[in-house]
Amino acid sequence: MTSYAKPVEVLIDELGRLPGIGPKSAQRIAFHLLKVDRIDSDRLANAIVDLKDKISFCERCFNVSEGEECTICIDPRRNQAVLCVVEEPKDISAIEKTGAYHGRYHVLLGVINPLEGVGPDQIKIRELAHRVAAESITEVILCTNPNLEGETTAAFIANKILKPFEIKVTRLASGLPVGGDLEYADELTLGRALEGRQTL
Amino acid sequence: MTSYAKPVEVLIDELGRLPGIGPKSAQRIAFHLLKVDRIDSDRLANAIVDLKDKISFCERCFNVSEGEECTICIDPRRNQAVLCVVEEPKDISAIEKTGAYHGRYHVLLGVINPLEGVGPDQIKIRELAHRVAAESITEVILCTNPNLEGETTAAFIANKILKPFEIKVTRLASGLPVGGDLEYADELTLGRALEGRQTL
Repeated sequence: MTSYAKPVEVLIDELGRLPGIGPKSAQRIAFHLLKVDRIDSDRLANAIVDLKDKISFCERCFNVSEGEECTICIDPRRNQAVLCVVEEPKDISAIEKTGAYHGRYHVLLGVINPLEGVGPDQIKIRELAHRVAAESITEVILCTNPNLEGETTAAFIANKILKPFEIKVTRLASGLPVGGDLEYADELTLGRALEGRQTL
Repeated sequence: MTSYAKPVEVLIDELGRLPGIGPKSAQRIAFHLLKVDRIDSDRLANAIVDLKDKISFCERCFNVSEGEECTICIDPRRNQAVLCVVEEPKDISAIEKTGAYHGRYHVLLGVINPLEGVGPDQIKIRELAHRVAAESITEVILCTNPNLEGETTAAFIANKILKPFEIKVTRLASGLPVGGDLEYADELTLGRALEGRQTL
């Protein structure tokens, strides 16, 4: 019984920590990297380092950003009075592709999930309340995923956080398959769901 | 319509070049790397660089190796007269786990695949012929994958390359599901297939 050389094992181990990468995929990717030219593997390693060097989270909405605030927050053409609340920055990209939304965003960077020990204080809910108070927001659209954790988070924000502000609070319309993931919805479905949003 | 910041796009693009990683997975991994601590993303980037710094292919058998020759080639306890021919270094690990093989290996680093422009000269077949001539080999076990390309490669090596040497040339026994991939076989099946190998 032999195992791989140490640097191969280390890389397989690191790759295996990535989401959606099992041990067999990690092994396949490691051997792929062994076979490609040095310049190609360096491009990947540099892209990872570059990401952390140049990208952080927007101080206002927690979208990914190259500066202190993201391109959407500093865009004066966006409707300043509407906030779309999403779980992750990648959800912004999905909504932007529909072309149906022209307000700004607030990224929670997670979702309430008691089983994994994530409560309201571990995600950016307090920051959302501060923004609603400080930025003259008139409508908050809750665009968390239409699954258990997303619905729980939306209900918590609507009932416990936003009720005192007496503003319009809406949720994505049905049309998204329940139990699904916002990230995988097609643009038309997501656009219609956004147009038909309902007051909670 | 906005897209991601440049460093995010670059990383998604690089991740998407890896085998088995589609655009959605690449995006998911990129955002995961954005959220983890700097030290964790650096560990991955360093593991990739380290791999290329420290690992190359064995000059004799083309297994992965930290030195000029791999640990199996320099191990005096291995049977020097038997060669097991595999497509990729990862196949060696699968065979070693069965504990049923005690000879040495020869890695082709590919398989004959005319559709992708890979002929006998693009993989390590010539080097195999040199070894059989120089190293007093008495048996070659052809352990390419039991699919179209693997069978073609095994038949080519048996009929065109090894016939003149008048040595024993064997193929993994049936027992492996046809159309499958050696890498995914369970240890017992692979071990039995090895024990029941047949003369071509």
